Amino acid sequence: MKLVRLRAPGGLDRLDLVEEDPPQPGPGDVLVRIRACSLNMRDDFAVRGKTPLADRRVPLSDGAGDVIAVGSNVDALKPGDSVVSVFYPWWLDGEMTPATRRDIPGESFDGFASEYVCMPAQAFTKAPAGYTHVQAAALTCTGLTAWRGVVVCGKVKPGDTVLVLGTGSVSLFALQFAKAAGARVIATSSDEEKLERLSRLGADAVINYKAVPDWSRKVRELTDGRGVDHVIEVGGPATLAQSLAACRTGGHIALIGVLTGFAADVSIPAIFSNQIRISGISIGSRADQEDMIRAIEVNRIEPVIDRRFPLREIAAAFTHYAAGKHFGKVCLEV
Amino acid sequence: MKLVRLRAPGGLDRLDLVEEDPPQPGPGDVLVRIRACSLNMRDDFAVRGKTPLADRRVPLSDGAGDVIAVGSNVDALKPGDSVVSVFYPWWLDGEMTPATRRDIPGESFDGFASEYVCMPAQAFTKAPAGYTHVQAAALTCTGLTAWRGVVVCGKVKPGDTVLVLGTGSVSLFALQFAKAAGARVIATSSDEEKLERLSRLGADAVINYKAVPDWSRKVRELTDGRGVDHVIEVGGPATLAQSLAACRTGGHIALIGVLTGFAADVSIPAIFSNQIRISGISIGSRADQEDMIRAIEVNRIEPVIDRRFPLREIAAAFTHYAAGKHFGKVCLEV
Amino acid sequence: MKLVRLRAPGGLDRLDLVEEDPPQPGPGDVLVRIRACSLNMRDDFAVRGKTPLADRRVPLSDGAGDVIAVGSNVDALKPGDSVVSVFYPWWLDGEMTPATRRDIPGESFDGFASEYVCMPAQAFTKAPAGYTHVQAAALTCTGLTAWRGVVVCGKVKPGDTVLVLGTGSVSLFALQFAKAAGARVIATSSDEEKLERLSRLGADAVINYKAVPDWSRKVRELTDGRGVDHVIEVGGPATLAQSLAACRTGGHIALIGVLTGFAADVSIPAIFSNQIRISGISIGSRADQEDMIRAIEVNRIEPVIDRRFPLREIAAAFTHYAAGKHFGKVCLEV
Amino acid sequence: MKLVRLRAPGGLDRLDLVEEDPPQPGPGDVLVRIRACSLNMRDDFAVRGKTPLADRRVPLSDGAGDVIAVGSNVDALKPGDSVVSVFYPWWLDGEMTPATRRDIPGESFDGFASEYVCMPAQAFTKAPAGYTHVQAAALTCTGLTAWRGVVVCGKVKPGDTVLVLGTGSVSLFALQFAKAAGARVIATSSDEEKLERLSRLGADAVINYKAVPDWSRKVRELTDGRGVDHVIEVGGPATLAQSLAACRTGGHIALIGVLTGFAADVSIPAIFSNQIRISGISIGSRADQEDMIRAIEVNRIEPVIDRRFPLREIAAAFTHYAAGKHFGKVCLEV
Repeated sequence: MKLVRLRAPGGLDRLDLVEEDPPQPGPGDVLVRIRACSLNMRDDFAVRGKTPLADRRVPLSDGAGDVIAVGSNVDALKPGDSVVSVFYPWWLDGEMTPATRRDIPGESFDGFASEYVCMPAQAFTKAPAGYTHVQAAALTCTGLTAWRGVVVCGKVKPGDTVLVLGTGSVSLFALQFAKAAGARVIATSSDEEKLERLSRLGADAVINYKAVPDWSRKVRELTDGRGVDHVIEVGGPATLAQSLAACRTGGHIALIGVLTGFAADVSIPAIFSNQIRISGISIGSRADQEDMIRAIEVNRIEPVIDRRFPLREIAAAFTHYAAGKHFGKVCLEV
Repeated sequence: MKLVRLRAPGGLDRLDLVEEDPPQPGPGDVLVRIRACSLNMRDDFAVRGKTPLADRRVPLSDGAGDVIAVGSNVDALKPGDSVVSVFYPWWLDGEMTPATRRDIPGESFDGFASEYVCMPAQAFTKAPAGYTHVQAAALTCTGLTAWRGVVVCGKVKPGDTVLVLGTGSVSLFALQFAKAAGARVIATSSDEEKLERLSRLGADAVINYKAVPDWSRKVRELTDGRGVDHVIEVGGPATLAQSLAACRTGGHIALIGVLTGFAADVSIPAIFSNQIRISGISIGSRADQEDMIRAIEVNRIEPVIDRRFPLREIAAAFTHYAAGKHFGKVCLEV
Repeated sequence: MKLVRLRAPGGLDRLDLVEEDPPQPGPGDVLVRIRACSLNMRDDFAVRGKTPLADRRVPLSDGAGDVIAVGSNVDALKPGDSVVSVFYPWWLDGEMTPATRRDIPGESFDGFASEYVCMPAQAFTKAPAGYTHVQAAALTCTGLTAWRGVVVCGKVKPGDTVLVLGTGSVSLFALQFAKAAGARVIATSSDEEKLERLSRLGADAVINYKAVPDWSRKVRELTDGRGVDHVIEVGGPATLAQSLAACRTGGHIALIGVLTGFAADVSIPAIFSNQIRISGISIGSRADQEDMIRAIEVNRIEPVIDRRFPLREIAAAFTHYAAGKHFGKVCLEV
Repeated sequence: MKLVRLRAPGGLDRLDLVEEDPPQPGPGDVLVRIRACSLNMRDDFAVRGKTPLADRRVPLSDGAGDVIAVGSNVDALKPGDSVVSVFYPWWLDGEMTPATRRDIPGESFDGFASEYVCMPAQAFTKAPAGYTHVQAAALTCTGLTAWRGVVVCGKVKPGDTVLVLGTGSVSLFALQFAKAAGARVIATSSDEEKLERLSRLGADAVINYKAVPDWSRKVRELTDGRGVDHVIEVGGPATLAQSLAACRTGGHIALIGVLTGFAADVSIPAIFSNQIRISGISIGSRADQEDMIRAIEVNRIEPVIDRRFPLREIAAAFTHYAAGKHFGKVCLEV
């Protein structure tokens, strides 16, 4: 089988396409023919060596494909099932703990840039019925993060207003999930063409934050002065202050990303005097993923796919990803 | 102004259309020109004397119209606002208490079968933008009951499956709110034409419970054996046992109605061994109504109106209501 | 090693004390020297053949002891740890599912009436620090059921009033957990001596339900007419109607038991007109057990132990249990 | 009657003790003979002119006393009732809104530095049974803030570990409420004598943050590396980073205060990678206050009173308050 291994200390020129024997499933394992992967910022950090990995790690946390064989004691999956990987294979349900967050594919153990992988069955769930493998591979990291921000932590309900920032994949999924939940969505971008695509994806109102630098004021106008019920905050330092200003009394901020840096200057009174609730979010559990997939099936949500690359062009895929012009997931076909 | 007063001890022949001077708003009051009312089972009980009322009570708990004048200290509403009545005018937010549940229009004080009413401003909220008065008047009692069953207590999320029973107004609203929340809906009726209408209203699957007397088994089939996440249970004794059987492990039953009687024989182990959660529901708070109205506006939900009668034909309206052939709300135009 | 096997079809005369070789831990397993077990109603049903079991099943779901050895891949436990068994070894966290509720020790696989058992590590948690094995063995089934009724589902907070019924072990634990949570507790019994013991255990008020057959009225008196916030309902048909009557508007009933039969005649309006919330409860998850144990350690809660029998007198222990005179857990020393 | 009025633009030398006629209760009002007030940081800001107030405002948001007379339509209170003021008289229940947060006694309308006040009945709740007026007056602002941080937003349960910072009144109340809820409490101070008093008040462990500047590390040691479940964060910029470091995966921070400034530099990844939940807290609703008072009565919690001054020495009281040496509430007797 073909697979990609990353030579330490990382770098796009150290992604080696190699040939190895396929693994065999032991008790509790499934053998999966991976057909697609998708790229995330943390994969980008990993392959470029910003996150130190063991030598010859197989990269990528998000993969989808077909079950080929199962080991003993596997009830939940069977050969022929179309499956998608789980980000935290040991976080089955309930709250994350230090024990269940430990292992991440593509980081602490080999990931999905490989034609075949063999893992414990709980490292996969069924893919949404009717999804292509590329669509399924889009879900693991950014899809589930958006799901948790909108549904699990946000508990968005019909009639709520949700603000999504920019056109990263978390924001696109959040827009789709919020619409599925009956919410009104306000979306931002600095690019008129992307704003147009956000509207077509369901955004009820859009704001060009380059044209309207104090976009939080515009958000309040669009909500009759009330502010939004939820912000899916992926911007970090560059946006958090305005996200707080855009929030209604008692509003909720799903705090996710680090697109603009790591340390933010936060106004404490802006949080407590408006009774703001903030949820720090890092992906979700296997049970969360199963819930998300049910929602995707019922609401026929299709992830936005920007572009597909063959596995051997993984370096080109990351170059495209890092250019930041994409709208939707950058994927590999395996 | 014209209004209807019910002579004790009640009966359709004791609904008197009378002429009186319009009231004047005191401090904190609004004067509303009522334009529409809707009928509910509890109004039916009231006008027929099954619920004892004070002599010459003005009936009906659900009314909508235009604000004509406001007294001093009224900020939230102004002349010209299109408004809809609140079932429990003192239950503003949070949990119901004995103090806040005490007063109900059409029961403990005069209701909305009147061209003009004068009440504290908190007895109304704004109607959904663009709604007719008849549509708005449909919301107060059955709309808000369904909202609380689906959203407030049920916390239905995208991908959940919701079972609604029959074609009463609570069930129709529950179907609409559940679809708005991204759920899959299974609906039942004994009438093929009504099943067809339920499908057109958005039901993903329908069951004729006359043709399929053990409909809970059919519900399990339709959910791959898993059972539904929520039942909006309006049937009472005739349906509760099957509703429990149709529920998944950990499922939720919104317990609302008494369509078939008051005392039900319940299997205790069916509740605890499956970790079932039951919410007894009696309408909702003023804040719940405001949330529901936001959801209606965002999702452009239109209540199903069966038929309109002029105020003077109130007795005919109740006769039509009691015949039980309606699909949607029976309304009065005032 | 010595252990007890139950010959089909069950009966106290079919509990055989036998001698077998101790098992060896495989990957992921722990070998535990069981030192104590406790008896529950479901064990009583099982050993008397009311619940059909496989021939030669080792009975008992609740056991505690010392870890002797661990297999490969076991991080969470080590030799020397004092441990207590988990009722649903596959229900780790979050909600129960059909998959995670399947296996129960002493029913679907061999239980704890044995000097040594070998099970996956997740079938145990650490015992509370400083607990005897007998105290630890008291927790699994009735302790965790009470914990879920009071804390997980009830979310009892300081100042709430909790009603516990009778002196079964679930009620005693519920009393202790409710007091630890800062609640006021009202307890009932038909026996003055037991009422005295309930008071000593922390009950703020007690009611002799034989002397006061309409005890729900007394409960309302004791709460200035308001009713209690929570009922830990273990009585079933004989008590449910009064439990509903004793509950405040918006109150919560943790529905647990079948002490008096299986089918109850329930007033539907009593549930919905008072916005009652009912939680069906069947034990809890492994994570719930870890939370409970933290609570026990911080609050130094000691389970009430009625009497200890040696393992070989298991039949006598069940005879004592079935006589129903006990106050606290009936235990075996192994 | 005697009362204090603050001449604009504020300052301790502009607190005038004046004599006026007592007010008379109108419909819905209660007339209360105020017997005690307590001082809060926001009162300190107000009387020193840092918060601009209308000229001749009567200061102080926290008051307690006896009902002398009631107007028409007042059911909930009667002459002779011992009462305590509500911080947001229009925030009755549920979530705070811009409408319900608007009016604050001592800021937007006259407060409690007065022998008699006349206000809508909902501006008071009953005081805890058996409390002195000084004890009751201690509750309104800091007591309810702590209650919401620990119970309403924190949902602290038995066995949780709660970290409280310093010896401000919010922290002392939080310690007491957390202990009532069955939690383990870790408390900090820079003063050994205050640490001793924190221990006597129930703290299970104390840390001198002057002696141990990286106190978050000590907190983790005290929790076997797990971190605390909750931080009652009153410190702001000076403490927030360590509070985050002291929190367990999935932990909760009740964000309250501005003791050390307004803008904090926050590590975004510290929040999201550990799934931290933050609740901004600004006092609470009238229903929250009633719940808190029930908890106080059941658990016999006594607020810590530092020192009492007569009303005429209000300026001296604020001087003492601002010196920051107090442990517990600084109160006025009226």
